Amino acid sequence: MHEVSSAVSNITRIPPQSGVAFRLRAGEILRICDPMGEQVADLFAFKDGEHACSLSSGRSIDYASKIYLSTGDPLYSNDSRVMFRILEDQVGRHDFLLTPCSQEMFEILYKHQGHHPSCFENLYRALAPFGIRPEQIGTTFNVFMNVVVAPDGTVAVKAPTSRAGQYIELRAEMDLVCGLTSCSAENSNNGSFKPIDYEIISGR
Amino acid sequence: MHEVSSAVSNITRIPPQSGVAFRLRAGEILRICDPMGEQVADLFAFKDGEHACSLSSGRSIDYASKIYLSTGDPLYSNDSRVMFRILEDQVGRHDFLLTPCSQEMFEILYKHQGHHPSCFENLYRALAPFGIRPEQIGTTFNVFMNVVVAPDGTVAVKAPTSRAGQYIELRAEMDLVCGLTSCSAENSNNGSFKPIDYEIISGR
Repeated sequence: MHEVSSAVSNITRIPPQSGVAFRLRAGEILRICDPMGEQVADLFAFKDGEHACSLSSGRSIDYASKIYLSTGDPLYSNDSRVMFRILEDQVGRHDFLLTPCSQEMFEILYKHQGHHPSCFENLYRALAPFGIRPEQIGTTFNVFMNVVVAPDGTVAVKAPTSRAGQYIELRAEMDLVCGLTSCSAENSNNGSFKPIDYEIISGR
Repeated sequence: MHEVSSAVSNITRIPPQSGVAFRLRAGEILRICDPMGEQVADLFAFKDGEHACSLSSGRSIDYASKIYLSTGDPLYSNDSRVMFRILEDQVGRHDFLLTPCSQEMFEILYKHQGHHPSCFENLYRALAPFGIRPEQIGTTFNVFMNVVVAPDGTVAVKAPTSRAGQYIELRAEMDLVCGLTSCSAENSNNGSFKPIDYEIISGR
């Protein structure tokens, strides 16, 4: 279902449990909106034309000295260039620790049998036409995902704090190829599957 | 200095601010020892002969549901296969959030001017003879690195808790190519630069 999307004015809707890929030019703003609340969107990105340069959780967290990135924070590439800057964030809680949900995750963590839609599959299928291989997709910026780290290091996935209509805006700081999903994992969106909306806005 | 190492019995010493790379066969045990205390060793690994399969912080943390991995915990690849299992851990505090220190890190975080030795450079130089490119090196397992996450998400690098002679043992669960460093960053080893020792032990 990753290729299915329906345009409503300038907003594109990503149906539940699916994903898309698109180019974003330097200066353009990507607005990612949770139209119904409590849904997660996994974002990954490459420098357009230079796919060895890709989004890096480890570098972004290191340079920000915090795991929760929000308004004003840059998202870095693996070679320490700024790929995005968060311009506005109405939610303030996103995860940058966990990899996108995958077939193997559902089997390992939840003993799921048979095929399960996943952000990882939706990302690599959507990004394949851009010449990107699955192993090039690392830890995603998990928009609206609410992951809490206890003092002993225990990680818990909580219901997103996003309410219907809230959004985050990220400005591209270089030409990018982006993959974006509406998350397929029951436990990251409080047991429901919902769409994600996104919009590409000219720089301002 | 990454290629310089001196053998003492079966123990190989990695001089301060340098790195090595080596093969580890499935079943072999890698013992990483902090000979003087309060030093960090960055570890990264690929499946031998299949470099698209590499160490994944995001998958390992997700499947363990914790950020601090220790005795008994597996370390996963990006395609969700077990690469290592921690057999023994005398320290109990290692970081899996931050990327290896790099030239750019010293410039961005510490305004350093001129060349600075770094784990990232030491890793990619040591791994280059195995056909591995710099961009294939992701977030390392930062042995003995003491990174604390506050409830608000703030990340602080503290002095390692490792005392002289303490070690961790990891068993290879597949044939691997490993890169390993003695860390070059002042702030991760309490202001000093020290060696790291390692030993490859036949399976038991």
